Amino acid sequence: MNRLLLFCFLLISGSCFAQTEDSLFFRKIADEILVNGKAYENLRVLCKTVGARLSGSPGMYKAEDWGIKTLNAMGADKVYMQECKVPHWVRGGKDEAWITYNDVKGKEVKIVLDVLAIGNSLGTGSNGIKAPVILIHDFDELEKRKEEIKGKIVFYNISFNPRYIEPGSAYGEAGISRRSGASRAARYGAVAVLIRSLSESVDNNPHTGALAYDSSQPKIPGAAIGLKDADRLNTLLSTGQTATAYIKTMAHFLPDTIGHNIIGELAGSEYPNEFITIGGHLDSWDPAEGAHDDGAGCVHSIEVLRSLKAIGYKPKHTIRIVLFANEENGLRGGTKYADEVVTKNEKHIFALESDNGGFTPKGFDFMMAPALLIKIQAWLPLFKPYGVYFFDSGGGGADVSPLNKKSNIPVSEFRPDSQRYFDLHHTRNDIFENVHKRELELGAVNITALIYMIDKYGL
Amino acid sequence: MNRLLLFCFLLISGSCFAQTEDSLFFRKIADEILVNGKAYENLRVLCKTVGARLSGSPGMYKAEDWGIKTLNAMGADKVYMQECKVPHWVRGGKDEAWITYNDVKGKEVKIVLDVLAIGNSLGTGSNGIKAPVILIHDFDELEKRKEEIKGKIVFYNISFNPRYIEPGSAYGEAGISRRSGASRAARYGAVAVLIRSLSESVDNNPHTGALAYDSSQPKIPGAAIGLKDADRLNTLLSTGQTATAYIKTMAHFLPDTIGHNIIGELAGSEYPNEFITIGGHLDSWDPAEGAHDDGAGCVHSIEVLRSLKAIGYKPKHTIRIVLFANEENGLRGGTKYADEVVTKNEKHIFALESDNGGFTPKGFDFMMAPALLIKIQAWLPLFKPYGVYFFDSGGGGADVSPLNKKSNIPVSEFRPDSQRYFDLHHTRNDIFENVHKRELELGAVNITALIYMIDKYGL
Repeated sequence: MNRLLLFCFLLISGSCFAQTEDSLFFRKIADEILVNGKAYENLRVLCKTVGARLSGSPGMYKAEDWGIKTLNAMGADKVYMQECKVPHWVRGGKDEAWITYNDVKGKEVKIVLDVLAIGNSLGTGSNGIKAPVILIHDFDELEKRKEEIKGKIVFYNISFNPRYIEPGSAYGEAGISRRSGASRAARYGAVAVLIRSLSESVDNNPHTGALAYDSSQPKIPGAAIGLKDADRLNTLLSTGQTATAYIKTMAHFLPDTIGHNIIGELAGSEYPNEFITIGGHLDSWDPAEGAHDDGAGCVHSIEVLRSLKAIGYKPKHTIRIVLFANEENGLRGGTKYADEVVTKNEKHIFALESDNGGFTPKGFDFMMAPALLIKIQAWLPLFKPYGVYFFDSGGGGADVSPLNKKSNIPVSEFRPDSQRYFDLHHTRNDIFENVHKRELELGAVNITALIYMIDKYGL
Repeated sequence: MNRLLLFCFLLISGSCFAQTEDSLFFRKIADEILVNGKAYENLRVLCKTVGARLSGSPGMYKAEDWGIKTLNAMGADKVYMQECKVPHWVRGGKDEAWITYNDVKGKEVKIVLDVLAIGNSLGTGSNGIKAPVILIHDFDELEKRKEEIKGKIVFYNISFNPRYIEPGSAYGEAGISRRSGASRAARYGAVAVLIRSLSESVDNNPHTGALAYDSSQPKIPGAAIGLKDADRLNTLLSTGQTATAYIKTMAHFLPDTIGHNIIGELAGSEYPNEFITIGGHLDSWDPAEGAHDDGAGCVHSIEVLRSLKAIGYKPKHTIRIVLFANEENGLRGGTKYADEVVTKNEKHIFALESDNGGFTPKGFDFMMAPALLIKIQAWLPLFKPYGVYFFDSGGGGADVSPLNKKSNIPVSEFRPDSQRYFDLHHTRNDIFENVHKRELELGAVNITALIYMIDKYGL
């Protein structure tokens, strides 16, 4: 064998050896998580003993305590809190809404709606608001009919486009109604808005979620109704029937308060001052337990630390698990974390968020240099047996995106199956019972495997 | 440009054109199914107006009528029945089982079990069977303790191995208890068997499914209990506690009867005498509606025909939709279909079954010559946007496998996400409400796209 051939042989056999070694290590990770996993039990405790945990709420403080206790119990070398100011929006009471109209005989008919005030919206006051309701299908129609808006309650009936394979795309598109519909309508004198919930579920649960007011417009109340109610209202108004809506929401802001990112670390053995961040967000909307959004991401992240420690892996870099504060209505935790990285001039090689629920894994999206992505894509065959089929270019999770924006740190987002996510998202059904044990665990397996590869080979 | 270059250019641009054309056609299929799809509504009607439909039951006849009516309504050129003899097993009444033991104070404690007789098993008679119960973890232990078996009820507590990523592998392995546990125990004088249900769900629903008696052994009764009951019983018996089990099942066979494969065709425009078969099985176990198993496969198959016709595609080959009889406890429909292919010397180029539920698609398995599989794998990039990531070598569905065995016809099996399948499989929870509309539809999209490619390019 000549030297070149020998070199090639060693290179190939070396790479085969590494692949076999990695493949065996993946199996170790999977066995640990599928046999001894704590993600599901940790999620149960978060959901059932803490429950809802919106920024500023009593649940937020209980969740922070849960995070500290759980990270310690799962074997973190160091657990600490990172303080940040968070908004403190409260629902203030039970939301109410109904529709009245006169039937062909002139008799008043009343339809009570299942309704939730939109997060960050301001309420109607205790008397509520009663006004004629106008059906609007998109912002183009709003513009065309702007003369008709004044004094009315605008009902945005923007459906998910079923053509999208990923419901997240439909959510992004239809979501303009929730995010900016109130201010857009207020510009033309609307007194409140009702929106069709951002979902394509077959039930009638209303979905909350945040709006952002345009500060140049009056801050009118906004509320979401379930899909069956939205369809009924759409049918009614499409015939030209006039109707009156009544909305009462008591939502308001209290002064900003102090919240925390909860951080747990496994110290790096070779590069203790170089960091890999894995996180989910600890806050959740108030109607339920935030099981998929984002209890799943929190326990996924903690499971990375627990499982690597349990199988005796010593990371080269410091692994940081971050339970971010306030993703839902402010992103103050993610912003604070990225600011501190800048302030302290920390070296971060990678950050990943799990914030798409605890469903069966399918892939990961990455926001990083194309050459890095190509490098990572070579690892994909190792993941296929565990159900991860793509490493695509895309976004990072909301909380880690500021790391990319401010410091150009490569970031990633875990992408589980998404078909059921928007059935539950921000509703009273986002509860522990709707998370599947093995689906949750398989997510943790793949996230842990990815972190292992990045820690071992660098980026 | 010289001729060779020109040729290469035309070849490449031709292939690009074909890919773009196919990709546009995939989009057309997806739009048709996601916007105008009938699979979900067809499944609702099957589940809610027919319900359970075990071979020989009144439900079987109603399901056959539903199949004929639905295939006609969805636009088949021709609908017909293919007769076959089917077994006629009946549960015969409510299954009952309990455990009694004496606690430390000598007081009798009774645990009532949630129980279902195993399909094809023979009952205990109306007096039931009462006998000491013995805990057995696998067939090795059965062999070692064969002297202790006589006169006892054997409780097989064989859990799913959580290390398998695909629960189907765990099902195959643990399933020996249900399939052959009764005869194995009868050999050593057992009077009945109880088995841990073939599942890893978090509930206590018992799962039925078929056994096959070894004709050389006494045919003793068998019944499945839920996982919580199995865990309780395991804990009790593991301490050395002696306990008595009582089982009453009234299961028995009536004489074989006549069932039918229900077949609908779209006539081929170029090769009307060459066939592509797409099927699911029409029969289901008796405790529920057979929504995932295999209503989903039936409506998937029908949706292939409906959607291709709706978008005006004229298949080259004759597309045959087959709703197979008697997959669950006999495979008589699939066997009959393959026998007729031989008898009539029909040319079949491909057959596919959907019998893994209506969950989010992930891939397809193929049983065909390696060169053919490589050809097909070149199409995978077209499928990725619709969530299909692998074309692997593997089995075909149960009902199409005889086509491969008897006539070497390439066969395939649709592979959706499988994590929830064995939570519902053969239980009272396999109902329409547990099928997700879009997940079901995305399965139909990918199956239809695959059939289109095979019809267009051949195999």
